Amino acid sequence: MMVSGSVNNGVSQKVLTAHNMNPKVRKAEYAVRGELAIRSEALKTELTNGATLPFSRVVGCNIGNPQALDQKPITFFRQVASLVEYPALLQEENAEVVSKLYPSDAVARAKLLLDSIGSVGAYSHSQGIPHIRNNVAQFIAERDGYPADPSKIYLTQGASAGVQLTLQMIVEHSKVGIMIPIPQYPLYTATLAVLDACPVPYYLNEDKNWGLTTEELQRSYDESIKNGIDTRALVIINPGNPTGQCLTEENMREIIVFCRKNKVILLADEVYQTNIYQNERPFHSFKKVLKSMGPEFEGFEMISYHSISKGMIGECGRRGGYFECEGLDNSVLEQIYKISSISLCPNVQGQIMVDLMVRPPKQGEPSYEQYKAEYDAIYFSLIKRASILEKTFNALEGCTCNPADGAMYLFPQIRLPKNAIQAAREAGKEPDQFYCMAMLEATGVCMVAGSGFGQVEGTAHFRSTFLPQPELFEGFCEGIRNFHVDFMNKYRD
Amino acid sequence: MMVSGSVNNGVSQKVLTAHNMNPKVRKAEYAVRGELAIRSEALKTELTNGATLPFSRVVGCNIGNPQALDQKPITFFRQVASLVEYPALLQEENAEVVSKLYPSDAVARAKLLLDSIGSVGAYSHSQGIPHIRNNVAQFIAERDGYPADPSKIYLTQGASAGVQLTLQMIVEHSKVGIMIPIPQYPLYTATLAVLDACPVPYYLNEDKNWGLTTEELQRSYDESIKNGIDTRALVIINPGNPTGQCLTEENMREIIVFCRKNKVILLADEVYQTNIYQNERPFHSFKKVLKSMGPEFEGFEMISYHSISKGMIGECGRRGGYFECEGLDNSVLEQIYKISSISLCPNVQGQIMVDLMVRPPKQGEPSYEQYKAEYDAIYFSLIKRASILEKTFNALEGCTCNPADGAMYLFPQIRLPKNAIQAAREAGKEPDQFYCMAMLEATGVCMVAGSGFGQVEGTAHFRSTFLPQPELFEGFCEGIRNFHVDFMNKYRD
Repeated sequence: MMVSGSVNNGVSQKVLTAHNMNPKVRKAEYAVRGELAIRSEALKTELTNGATLPFSRVVGCNIGNPQALDQKPITFFRQVASLVEYPALLQEENAEVVSKLYPSDAVARAKLLLDSIGSVGAYSHSQGIPHIRNNVAQFIAERDGYPADPSKIYLTQGASAGVQLTLQMIVEHSKVGIMIPIPQYPLYTATLAVLDACPVPYYLNEDKNWGLTTEELQRSYDESIKNGIDTRALVIINPGNPTGQCLTEENMREIIVFCRKNKVILLADEVYQTNIYQNERPFHSFKKVLKSMGPEFEGFEMISYHSISKGMIGECGRRGGYFECEGLDNSVLEQIYKISSISLCPNVQGQIMVDLMVRPPKQGEPSYEQYKAEYDAIYFSLIKRASILEKTFNALEGCTCNPADGAMYLFPQIRLPKNAIQAAREAGKEPDQFYCMAMLEATGVCMVAGSGFGQVEGTAHFRSTFLPQPELFEGFCEGIRNFHVDFMNKYRD
Repeated sequence: MMVSGSVNNGVSQKVLTAHNMNPKVRKAEYAVRGELAIRSEALKTELTNGATLPFSRVVGCNIGNPQALDQKPITFFRQVASLVEYPALLQEENAEVVSKLYPSDAVARAKLLLDSIGSVGAYSHSQGIPHIRNNVAQFIAERDGYPADPSKIYLTQGASAGVQLTLQMIVEHSKVGIMIPIPQYPLYTATLAVLDACPVPYYLNEDKNWGLTTEELQRSYDESIKNGIDTRALVIINPGNPTGQCLTEENMREIIVFCRKNKVILLADEVYQTNIYQNERPFHSFKKVLKSMGPEFEGFEMISYHSISKGMIGECGRRGGYFECEGLDNSVLEQIYKISSISLCPNVQGQIMVDLMVRPPKQGEPSYEQYKAEYDAIYFSLIKRASILEKTFNALEGCTCNPADGAMYLFPQIRLPKNAIQAAREAGKEPDQFYCMAMLEATGVCMVAGSGFGQVEGTAHFRSTFLPQPELFEGFCEGIRNFHVDFMNKYRD
């Protein structure tokens, strides 16, 4: 009798191996938490264990994670989150003591939320708490000047979960194509790999500040069709990630016309909508631009995503966000509800933070001044740090960097010496991956190589957040400069 | 020039419809939040809007959601959750005021957690916060008497997310089979539909208190192989959902032997491990039973799941849980990490509740007495309510119900009159669905039809939680009795 589990024919005895697992999962790549990030975790552990390294601290610039780099949360938001956790604080008998720790508007908001939620420990409606969806709809209406329908808003565990869920809806078979920018945030390529769909790349023009033209969209679309791909949706990230560009309203109108002409659904990733660092191209939502185009565009199909992780909030760890569906068929909305219900509901604390994001303290309310001061301090500091880091990159030999019009990243191009490229090849790495790994080992700064986002063949880039603490920022830039000089000296042709 | 989006050939003009969307998503069914639950939400809204219905309150017994039915959360857990949200409470200057609201051990735990986390608003390690994974490992070791490895523990957004993620790893192609119990919790069939894999049903024996035999497992496995299915894993839910049975240690050993013999991975859904309502079959984890079987079973591949949503905690809305991998290939563990990283991290408040679940207050600590009292009150009340509801069901004409040895549900069989079955067919419904819908419309009580879980052909069941409030429980049972009498009178042959 063959009792397996102990059979070994020179191959793994395991039932499940990397060779017979889901090949779509195996194929997916996510550089933001890839080899560099894993190495940076190992270095952190080494430092904790007392190792002597060329640096005393690992600085994670690989991911937009502000609070991991000591950005302080918005106090009012956390006060409300704290109160809803412990409803005894809202009882009359504790009112006096509580008033020494919490402002009255935080107490009022917590009561209002618990009245409609019951308990943060209960599963909510799978689409999200109705009261909070109403508030999101009101926020969108005020932002855009056009109404929004709460029944078409879905709260999610971060924008990533919303993107994954909606892409999953669209992918009917393995020849379905989804247009994505190059460079792109690798959530898109990873999700398409898992769904076994075709990424259809369109290129942003680095020479024109990462600009996007409809000519390039049409080229990309036409080429996909020629290749037998059934292209059905277009992803736009605005402000861009990793590239930080902001679209003009005119450009957005052209994109909507492009989508309608070619019958592709527009997926608008707008998670950086408040991270805008210039005045020429303020943020416009695709929803607003669409609505401004009149009845001719009635029924246009679009999904837009927002998140509590970015902006001046930076509450990444709670996993909260929403997406709004525009023009989708009702039968599709029902299917989105059904698939959401299998995962029961988005976590309630994440939903509460969505409520706070869309209804921050208003002028005249007790917490307004503090909220405004905290918000502005983060905002103006981001503008300053973006500019300092851009200048740092542009001063490096062989390096050019577009300014960050928005978002949280810079994406400089780096022209590496042939010797460095040769050394990278010998180490079995992409040249930009090799450069970033050398930087990490020398400085403790973890960035992400451009190859993880996609880039024009033969070019090399890397992405860095500009989130390190203001008081450490000059030292952080100095470390990059010194590393770069050493690196170039070592490999210069 | 054809400008589409306005073309209409009698079919939907939409780019995305229920007909051309992902057919795997369309196929998935999740009865727990299906038609009945959607109708119950609509009834709730009608009541809120002042409608006159035959009942004054909708009672959701379709889902194990204790806090939605006013079960109080464990105070200590919420105190810690509240403190970590608002770190100013932990500062020395607030110590005196805070001590009036929070016990010292809650303050100490919150400080300890924030020391290792930094901020609940930061993305954590994608596998979960290392400090909390260490504590989970210690909990497992103490529970089982065998060590656990934190590097093989993955924190998740609830057990559902863990099940979805791990099934996704295993499904290589569309002929991969996963053995599931019938009746089953429909997360499994829904997830397998989305993954395009084959559910391989094995039947629990209702006449033997929903018992499970390895003969039936072998029959099911052999039949799947005969049908060309590549069966690779076995799901065991212990205690059972919806069936509430608890496995004996001997039975568990046989299951492990079965798995090894047939080279299938064991997936042990143990989320109800503390919901045990009898002494004959206490909970044993599969991990412990496996380890007790000695070195012959070294390398056995198993994944077990746990959750903060069930037990006496009932913190469903936070979405927290973990799974532990045993014997899995390292290359597979790396892939699990990678796929987790694409979703960044489980929400941090959910992770914190996992910490609290595995490290509740200990005897002698300030919060212990209150914790113990709250825990026991819920526990003994669940035993009592399970028994009252079981007796209620067994007293109904045509109804038989096994006792709940564990979990949160009863799953009675109901023998419906021919006229009722006829009426159901005419309404285009399964007979049990028809019965449950009639109950909902008459009483406001929402249960789930057995057809949503799977059942022996020609039988009818329904699942109900026994979570309605203790003080309302007799009235709840009375409502069911009255409805049933009316229903039978209406349809009796």
